[in-house]
Amino acid sequence: MAQNKVGKQTWQFAARPVIVSWGTAVGPMEGQGPLRDQFDMILDSNLFKGDKSWEESEQRLMQHSMELALEKAGMKAQDLDLYLAGDLLNQIITANFSARFFGAPFFGLYGACSTLVEGLAIGASVLNAGYVDNVGVSASSHYGTAERQLRYPTELGVQRLPTAQWTVTGAGSYIINMSGRGVGIVCATVGKVKDLGISNAGDMGTAMAPAAYDTITVNLQELQRKTSDYDFIVTGDLGELGLNALKELLASEGHSTNNVCDCGMLIYEPAQDTHAGGSGCGCSAAVLGYLLRQMLDKKFQRVLFVGTGALMSPTSTMQGNSIPCVAHAVVLESS
Amino acid sequence: MAQNKVGKQTWQFAARPVIVSWGTAVGPMEGQGPLRDQFDMILDSNLFKGDKSWEESEQRLMQHSMELALEKAGMKAQDLDLYLAGDLLNQIITANFSARFFGAPFFGLYGACSTLVEGLAIGASVLNAGYVDNVGVSASSHYGTAERQLRYPTELGVQRLPTAQWTVTGAGSYIINMSGRGVGIVCATVGKVKDLGISNAGDMGTAMAPAAYDTITVNLQELQRKTSDYDFIVTGDLGELGLNALKELLASEGHSTNNVCDCGMLIYEPAQDTHAGGSGCGCSAAVLGYLLRQMLDKKFQRVLFVGTGALMSPTSTMQGNSIPCVAHAVVLESS
Repeated sequence: MAQNKVGKQTWQFAARPVIVSWGTAVGPMEGQGPLRDQFDMILDSNLFKGDKSWEESEQRLMQHSMELALEKAGMKAQDLDLYLAGDLLNQIITANFSARFFGAPFFGLYGACSTLVEGLAIGASVLNAGYVDNVGVSASSHYGTAERQLRYPTELGVQRLPTAQWTVTGAGSYIINMSGRGVGIVCATVGKVKDLGISNAGDMGTAMAPAAYDTITVNLQELQRKTSDYDFIVTGDLGELGLNALKELLASEGHSTNNVCDCGMLIYEPAQDTHAGGSGCGCSAAVLGYLLRQMLDKKFQRVLFVGTGALMSPTSTMQGNSIPCVAHAVVLESS
Repeated sequence: MAQNKVGKQTWQFAARPVIVSWGTAVGPMEGQGPLRDQFDMILDSNLFKGDKSWEESEQRLMQHSMELALEKAGMKAQDLDLYLAGDLLNQIITANFSARFFGAPFFGLYGACSTLVEGLAIGASVLNAGYVDNVGVSASSHYGTAERQLRYPTELGVQRLPTAQWTVTGAGSYIINMSGRGVGIVCATVGKVKDLGISNAGDMGTAMAPAAYDTITVNLQELQRKTSDYDFIVTGDLGELGLNALKELLASEGHSTNNVCDCGMLIYEPAQDTHAGGSGCGCSAAVLGYLLRQMLDKKFQRVLFVGTGALMSPTSTMQGNSIPCVAHAVVLESS
């Protein structure tokens, strides 16, 4: 068996790549939520001043989040040997247009809300293997761009389902290298696509819960761990219904779940009336910064960070298909 | 500097991962072209019998191409430790729905027509580093799905521009491992996004040529090679105009170009009247099988295979943006 493979789905990074810095930029609604003090940049409106489209502003959010991360690390964009990014928009234009500004070698990724973790896993793997010295990873989403592309034009004022999650306007960018200073990415578990036949695009959390369950239990099994071996298991983004479904699945197999939480439940307050919580690539991408800060402050030592993605499109939904889902996990450890 | 890094953009795979098998499946037009004897499966129509949508048939093309590759390798889908796939459709549904059938750990990729090479590069890197034992890589496109999503509904009968390329209906799947039997992937050069301001989505070849030029010259420089050190430099897919532009760029810097060719020029005959040649993720994905067969037959020993992607979307074009482009390369060597 390959020497850095721990079971079929888990890769180990013995040289311990670290997240050396990050930047987060969010919209006004996220800036009113409980994590308001954790974000580096909060917009007054869902548009940057002067922008003519939400797409343009989403691109700027991603770009600014990476510029903030680079600045904090004392680096320039040309120091990046690899830029990994993705978003929810058709042909991932947010990532492609952001990459145009950085001039770094670039791979585009699509994993819906699992995109950030996909990027962290690939980034840590190529760093650990010595192909690159510095990797940047970004993911973003925007309420305005996502609603009109994936659901209804917001001008229609369509009533949202009580099971629906609210797409986060936000971006997060992370810089990983081998400097040893920061939270380490020590393992990754690559998820399989799971589809239990749910076709309600208004309840993606429930659709994604089996994928999160599968990846978490594979991680535990391949590393011979229990849920309590992690200080925190954080999914992104199942929302309220999906998180409850995940906890039920875990509990039914005898796993304790009191340390299991979800980025979509952390980013908004109930009073913000987002229904089932936050979602979108930008949700876990913005919340991870908060988690890393907690880890650096020694509040948690070992975290399983699980990105979950609903892999349908409006076309596949209109053609009557169910929702294939995936979850990828990285094990984060503060030294 | 990281030990497997050769210059900023080039990664080396000293353990020599190999492409052990492949499968290709194409539509009727590709089956009438000059490579007709090279494809494993040729459809009678752009729809599989019984399918109600082109999307469904594109998904089947990708799935069948991987099933053929697995069969030839004497493997089952569960032998794959990682499946890397992408396509042109919104939210890469072809890849996502194909991954659902295989049950293998899965990362979705988006690099437009550079997707296959992105997958080969990531696949070879994680194999060489010992995270996995067997990797599958797929890419696909379909004339019907791409035209209606990215340009006009075909029912409108809009006249195509003479500069336009024809989206290939086809899929190719490749299995890579460390068995040593087959054509080796010995290096990869990861491309930077280049955008020289071209905004004509009806001439993507010309838009992509500078990205191909950049990646090829970086590869030559970092490996201290000349174009003549390769038996063949094959881009996918610049088409006629893009290939001419690339050759002019290379010649202007003193590089010989008589061994430079393009998958989009190999897949159709002039009499098929596709205007500027083939394009789409499925073009290079279907043509690579032919190139590998030539390499195994000792007609070429060392090939630079360069995937080129135009990273716009209909939304970005309608909003007046230019076309960011990228090219990634892998160095293939027969033993």
